[in-house]
Amino acid sequence: MVKLESSLSYWMGRVDLNNTIDLVKKYGEVINQYLNEYVPEAAVPEKKIYEAMRYSLLAGGKRIRPVLTLAVNQLFDGDMDEAIPFACAIEMIHTYSLIHDDLPAMDNDDYRRRRLTNHKVFGEGIAVLTGDALLNKAFEIMISILRDGYSLDRKVRVMYEIANASGIEGMIGGQVVDLESEGKFVDQETLRYMHSRKTGRLIVASAVAGAITAGAGEEDIGKIRSYASNLGLAFQIKDDILSEIGEQEKLGKRVGNDREKNKSTYVTTLGLDEAKRLLDITTRSSIESLESFKERAEFLIGLAEFLLHREN
Amino acid sequence: MVKLESSLSYWMGRVDLNNTIDLVKKYGEVINQYLNEYVPEAAVPEKKIYEAMRYSLLAGGKRIRPVLTLAVNQLFDGDMDEAIPFACAIEMIHTYSLIHDDLPAMDNDDYRRRRLTNHKVFGEGIAVLTGDALLNKAFEIMISILRDGYSLDRKVRVMYEIANASGIEGMIGGQVVDLESEGKFVDQETLRYMHSRKTGRLIVASAVAGAITAGAGEEDIGKIRSYASNLGLAFQIKDDILSEIGEQEKLGKRVGNDREKNKSTYVTTLGLDEAKRLLDITTRSSIESLESFKERAEFLIGLAEFLLHREN
Repeated sequence: MVKLESSLSYWMGRVDLNNTIDLVKKYGEVINQYLNEYVPEAAVPEKKIYEAMRYSLLAGGKRIRPVLTLAVNQLFDGDMDEAIPFACAIEMIHTYSLIHDDLPAMDNDDYRRRRLTNHKVFGEGIAVLTGDALLNKAFEIMISILRDGYSLDRKVRVMYEIANASGIEGMIGGQVVDLESEGKFVDQETLRYMHSRKTGRLIVASAVAGAITAGAGEEDIGKIRSYASNLGLAFQIKDDILSEIGEQEKLGKRVGNDREKNKSTYVTTLGLDEAKRLLDITTRSSIESLESFKERAEFLIGLAEFLLHREN
Repeated sequence: MVKLESSLSYWMGRVDLNNTIDLVKKYGEVINQYLNEYVPEAAVPEKKIYEAMRYSLLAGGKRIRPVLTLAVNQLFDGDMDEAIPFACAIEMIHTYSLIHDDLPAMDNDDYRRRRLTNHKVFGEGIAVLTGDALLNKAFEIMISILRDGYSLDRKVRVMYEIANASGIEGMIGGQVVDLESEGKFVDQETLRYMHSRKTGRLIVASAVAGAITAGAGEEDIGKIRSYASNLGLAFQIKDDILSEIGEQEKLGKRVGNDREKNKSTYVTTLGLDEAKRLLDITTRSSIESLESFKERAEFLIGLAEFLLHREN
């Protein structure tokens, strides 16, 4: 454990990222185990949809959202069992959005996480239904845990946070703006509006879900919201930079894809240097929100740095 | 009000269908008013998705599912205000499933309810997102009403019933079997399995939602479940018959479409006469489940007959 000096800016670059990566893996394994149970293999007539759900859900990926949920829950000494169903529901929502975004009628991507996209393997019809099924399943899981009658207020609040973040005022709304912006010049403000909805709100909901399930106070929830909001923005800027200059092999999908599709990104709008500068500032803002948690925030700080330095 | 004789079989054909139709309209208007409020017009950057949601959601349609919810709620002297959000959520789920089913990758239909299908007007990308948005919104509405803390057990039970009926064990599963069966011979058993999931389970959930929100007892819920299960089957058989022999003008979509697409229906599997016979038997079974409710069931009986005789 690194000792805290007077300010968190001292901290940046001093977190042992190996610890961070180990913990990301540990949380990720918990999530994978539960996802595997929530969507089992099935020998029913509609078994193809179970296969298709598992294909995309268990395809790897960084599991940033559910990791955030579990990590924030642990920051506030929560019971991880209460956070896990929400973490899994969020990962299902994220996965469904990727499957639908990859469809020919949207981003038309053939590869995702180094594998063929869902519709390339199962066909477009099944891919649409697989997305639908994952969204529906996410809610089924959350409703199931309401039935035990315990901590109902907290659970309902988390569910609403997630549902709102994934709907038209959140992820879906952002995707609409993205789709509508194709081929047009998009200024920084619109880009930010779009991404804060398309990816930002669900990342915020992931972190806030961890805080609420752990019974964190409103002030602390606010700090976590601010951390995750900047983290989400940084995540998107980094994605745009990698999409422009990353190595295809590490990325698992084609480089330069956004530019070919005439998509506006932080790189096309701001230029590469300015995008990198904004990434640094945003990562720093993210970390600064955690100041009052002192060394207990080490993992979340490491996570922000890990995302800053990632190559895929 | 028609006087009840010793058995409900006496009743069939004696309900004044004009009363039934008036009440269907009255309930339908309540639903339309709330749907219009739940998905308002919006002047935000993503306004196109609001337009697309409203285009399909407010396109008319028989509103059978939400009408069932309200009517069953009233049969048990429920507070209609408690049933309305669930009725609207169910109609949103039904509408999203139609939008996705109509996509080129699935049924590839150009017309629905006498209008161009969603993807023909807004494009395939927006149509996928519109379906996603309606499913998500359905859950947002149901979660919202959990926050008032009233009748929580009943509400959670209704939500689970709906979520399960619309997921892989219900509607989506049925649609997968449907998609997988295209171009293959399908026997009556498989057809029944497919339809009981694809349309049956959500119709049952609609009726059961009405009963649970009104605080009906388990035995009565069982009778309603049985009624709705047969009603759903009858509804599908009638759909298949209309799709084969209905008048295109009244139907609002092309006749003979199923046959051209090599889709198995009750008509292609059983032949027209046997399909009509099964429709009669099923409608009768549906009505018989209501025997103990005596004349209070008049509307639900009328609804079954109305669906039996409908021309679109």
